[in-house]
Amino acid sequence: MKQSQLFTKTTKTIPGNIKAVSHKLLYQAGFIRESVAGRYYFLPLGIRVRDKVIEIIEQEMNKAGAIKMITPVLHPLELWKETKRTDSVGFELMKVKDRSGKEFVLGGTAEEMIVDLVRKFGVSYKDLPFNIYQFSQKFRDELRARGGLLRVREFLMKDAYSFHKDEKDFKKEYQNMWKTYTKIFNCLGLKTVVVESDNGYIGGEYCHEFIVESDVGESPFLISQDGKYAAHEDVAKFRKEKKNLNEKEKKLKEVEAKRGKTMQDGVNLHKLPLWQQIKDVMFVDDKNRFILAIIRGDFNVNEVKLKNLVQVNDLRHATDEEIRKLGTEPGFISPVGINKRVIVVADNSLRTIKNTYGGANKKNRDLLNINIGRDYKPNFERDIAMAQHGLISEQGSKLKEGRGIEVGNIFQLGEHYSKRMNATFTAQDGKKKFYYMGCYGIGIDRTIAAVVEKYNDNKGITWPKQVAPFQTHLIQIENKPKIIKTAGKIYQDLEKQGIEVLYDDREDKSAGEKFADADLIGIPIRIVISKKTLERNSVEIKHRDKKEVKLVKTKNLLQFLN
Amino acid sequence: MKQSQLFTKTTKTIPGNIKAVSHKLLYQAGFIRESVAGRYYFLPLGIRVRDKVIEIIEQEMNKAGAIKMITPVLHPLELWKETKRTDSVGFELMKVKDRSGKEFVLGGTAEEMIVDLVRKFGVSYKDLPFNIYQFSQKFRDELRARGGLLRVREFLMKDAYSFHKDEKDFKKEYQNMWKTYTKIFNCLGLKTVVVESDNGYIGGEYCHEFIVESDVGESPFLISQDGKYAAHEDVAKFRKEKKNLNEKEKKLKEVEAKRGKTMQDGVNLHKLPLWQQIKDVMFVDDKNRFILAIIRGDFNVNEVKLKNLVQVNDLRHATDEEIRKLGTEPGFISPVGINKRVIVVADNSLRTIKNTYGGANKKNRDLLNINIGRDYKPNFERDIAMAQHGLISEQGSKLKEGRGIEVGNIFQLGEHYSKRMNATFTAQDGKKKFYYMGCYGIGIDRTIAAVVEKYNDNKGITWPKQVAPFQTHLIQIENKPKIIKTAGKIYQDLEKQGIEVLYDDREDKSAGEKFADADLIGIPIRIVISKKTLERNSVEIKHRDKKEVKLVKTKNLLQFLN
Repeated sequence: MKQSQLFTKTTKTIPGNIKAVSHKLLYQAGFIRESVAGRYYFLPLGIRVRDKVIEIIEQEMNKAGAIKMITPVLHPLELWKETKRTDSVGFELMKVKDRSGKEFVLGGTAEEMIVDLVRKFGVSYKDLPFNIYQFSQKFRDELRARGGLLRVREFLMKDAYSFHKDEKDFKKEYQNMWKTYTKIFNCLGLKTVVVESDNGYIGGEYCHEFIVESDVGESPFLISQDGKYAAHEDVAKFRKEKKNLNEKEKKLKEVEAKRGKTMQDGVNLHKLPLWQQIKDVMFVDDKNRFILAIIRGDFNVNEVKLKNLVQVNDLRHATDEEIRKLGTEPGFISPVGINKRVIVVADNSLRTIKNTYGGANKKNRDLLNINIGRDYKPNFERDIAMAQHGLISEQGSKLKEGRGIEVGNIFQLGEHYSKRMNATFTAQDGKKKFYYMGCYGIGIDRTIAAVVEKYNDNKGITWPKQVAPFQTHLIQIENKPKIIKTAGKIYQDLEKQGIEVLYDDREDKSAGEKFADADLIGIPIRIVISKKTLERNSVEIKHRDKKEVKLVKTKNLLQFLN
Repeated sequence: MKQSQLFTKTTKTIPGNIKAVSHKLLYQAGFIRESVAGRYYFLPLGIRVRDKVIEIIEQEMNKAGAIKMITPVLHPLELWKETKRTDSVGFELMKVKDRSGKEFVLGGTAEEMIVDLVRKFGVSYKDLPFNIYQFSQKFRDELRARGGLLRVREFLMKDAYSFHKDEKDFKKEYQNMWKTYTKIFNCLGLKTVVVESDNGYIGGEYCHEFIVESDVGESPFLISQDGKYAAHEDVAKFRKEKKNLNEKEKKLKEVEAKRGKTMQDGVNLHKLPLWQQIKDVMFVDDKNRFILAIIRGDFNVNEVKLKNLVQVNDLRHATDEEIRKLGTEPGFISPVGINKRVIVVADNSLRTIKNTYGGANKKNRDLLNINIGRDYKPNFERDIAMAQHGLISEQGSKLKEGRGIEVGNIFQLGEHYSKRMNATFTAQDGKKKFYYMGCYGIGIDRTIAAVVEKYNDNKGITWPKQVAPFQTHLIQIENKPKIIKTAGKIYQDLEKQGIEVLYDDREDKSAGEKFADADLIGIPIRIVISKKTLERNSVEIKHRDKKEVKLVKTKNLLQFLN
């Protein structure tokens, strides 16, 4: 392509709201433009990169045995009602009505659409397993779009859905997709950390995110020093070491406690360790139930784990007024003798300590020597703790915090959708059985942002060649007829040979401007023709990511590039 | 691909609402499935065809110098308000609000989006012309979806938009796109008629549709016998031969006319030719103005031409009550002495006749010897007549009716959008100038339907090879180990050679079922391996569109196919 025909231009100006490096460079070099917040045009250079990313993913998905198809963008709302996802997705879902009043969802992910399709075919165990995927535009009504392509409201997604006769068969495909994703991101020049995560509104029991480590990322996670365990902070587990389990259980005692409402106030008053104190957090769920989460004093409650445990979509902190109405007191809540309406959820860390202390459900009164089982019996007792930097993984390696860009994810769905949508196949014994399912996504736009976050220097982007918009950037310096003629000839030769070339034929730009543009756009190989090189029947070759410049005889250029 | 891995299946059942051949075959062979009316899944076989169509279009657009990019699917409503298309498109437009209350249009075409993008770049005359295109999902809230992919509510469109410094430059691109489209459709195996059409809600002054002649098509048009003129009935022109212009103008005379309200009643009463009678049709426009359309009695009013002339989006017939309130009488309306509020629009055919007759704006009273100019002066006098089969084109060739599937269109937009959106470039003289524009669309889904309408027989589809889902269909008959082994080997060899192959490895289907499926799916070359062929170290080759069957030595197969 001739650069003179690109209506897009590079620019030095950077709008004030642009912070992330990938956003800045993709904007300045003319790969993308924002329509309104979170909705992007892919300009001619940008779509070439996107097409290459698509092709790499498609090839690897095909090799892995997945089959491409595509669903409509508008999903009938009734399908989302069947799976109750209209409740769980909430505000991220965009809805639209047609002229007849029929309601649709702008597709965010396509589980319902795919299951609805598959259940209409007479599938037998002999047809299983299969994995079907698509590339399609997805919509998320994000509260805040940010970072250019890092968090958008409309984007291209590769989403795949696999159908299996049982869990064992599914697990093979989960591994297959795990490997395929690792390979895809490697092909794109991205090293990924695979992180256990919360399923969010997708449903199912477990899933993994593929994260490119980066400071601009929004996905905080914990990774063990030995690299064997990585998990999103929403689900990360850690070892809760035993404290004073050797102690005898002492007698429960109520004492006066003129203190403030914080944990530290309790420590100061009783001169006992923080870990021995009970931390009580009162929540109200979306069904207006009161949930009291209790945990060892040195840990924090993980609301995602708590939500999943009590199976609600939303939780909020109870107000002081609500707490008093329950017959207790802010800062002095205790599971011991709490109002029976309250659902008590205890973190299993409370089994690592004895003779704990905390409030007495009355202002300025505390209880000492509280013991779980003896003095109170929680409704649930499970892991609801938030892991954090410095704690020890269950396997015994220290956890450290990581942060990155989530570029893909793989989900176990189990029978979550097939049961809700009554989607069955005919098993070998002739009976109808629910599909065991998985799903697998890659966000194309965010993947491109991740590549740019990794591949850049202070002059611009340094595209890996497999996703570069062009392989070569041919630049003519000075507009002498002989130079133009030679450059034009080389341009044609390269195109004929199928070597992608962006030809900077602009006659109103200086050498300096052209070089700066070339560095900004970041095509791997720069080929310069000038008076100087022409005198030697040569062109000057420079790799974007190297400093050396090399003279190559024009007649040997094609050979050199091949 | 192995056919056993296709979860989709062929079927003999045809739902009752399926009428069009393309709909029936694409459904039965498993290329598409409906989600809800007018919204389709492309199944694994279908998306392969779609991808091939896309690739052909993309290659030809690139060769023609157009540049690919892509816009978001959601268009900010305010852009559509700038061009006032929110008024003209009406109910076909789908709107959606995000959580912040911002309104969007689900893109139908993308003129506003593209102009909004381009006007933000500092474009000079040196950057012009350029033609940018995209493949993107489009939405039309059609009143009735029908015919499978023939009329849908959601579809993939290739839409292109060109920007020029003036009309002369634009016209070159219009010709370029005309040729490119003809070439694209030829590549797809489609012969197209290029038909002058109404611009509809796109705007601009003229446009042409590319139509594949077919009885299932919804686009009626007129084409001259010599093939030199073709136009949609909305805009078609014809020669209005002079009738009695030699007569002297006689004196206007009001007579009693006890007759019915039809034109024929007038003919019978006065014993004068139909063509000499004035046909009066009273309309009400969307601004509640009364429009009286008058025309020679043997012609009909073309509402599209009328709407364009008076520049309104909607017209309806006036009620009898409204007509009487104007002080005239249904069946006896006359331009002579009509209420001054009424806008009179005369077809220029009234200049081909003299001493005409018709109502007198009173019940049972007619006027004789009415003459245009003398007895009444219309507000507009132009062509508002409906062409029809049997009339003569302006060039003198007889018009006949055609019908077909509109697969593409090219539009002159002129300054329609650039003026409304204040989109300018810097001209050579340094002044700001509005872009002169064109736009060019191809409906991918409908194009695929058109191919199937043309390429089928009583057994199924007969895909032209350039868009066939696979080039070869390898079928193994009988499940003997040796047959399976040989078939598997051939399958691998073909794949290695890059020859696309669908391998029917299903072990629970008879030869008859496999052949019927192969005919239905319509892959160009069928390769059969059976006990019989194996004995001769051969395979049996049959072209889908031919009867002959040929034995080819297995070892020569690749050579034969290449």
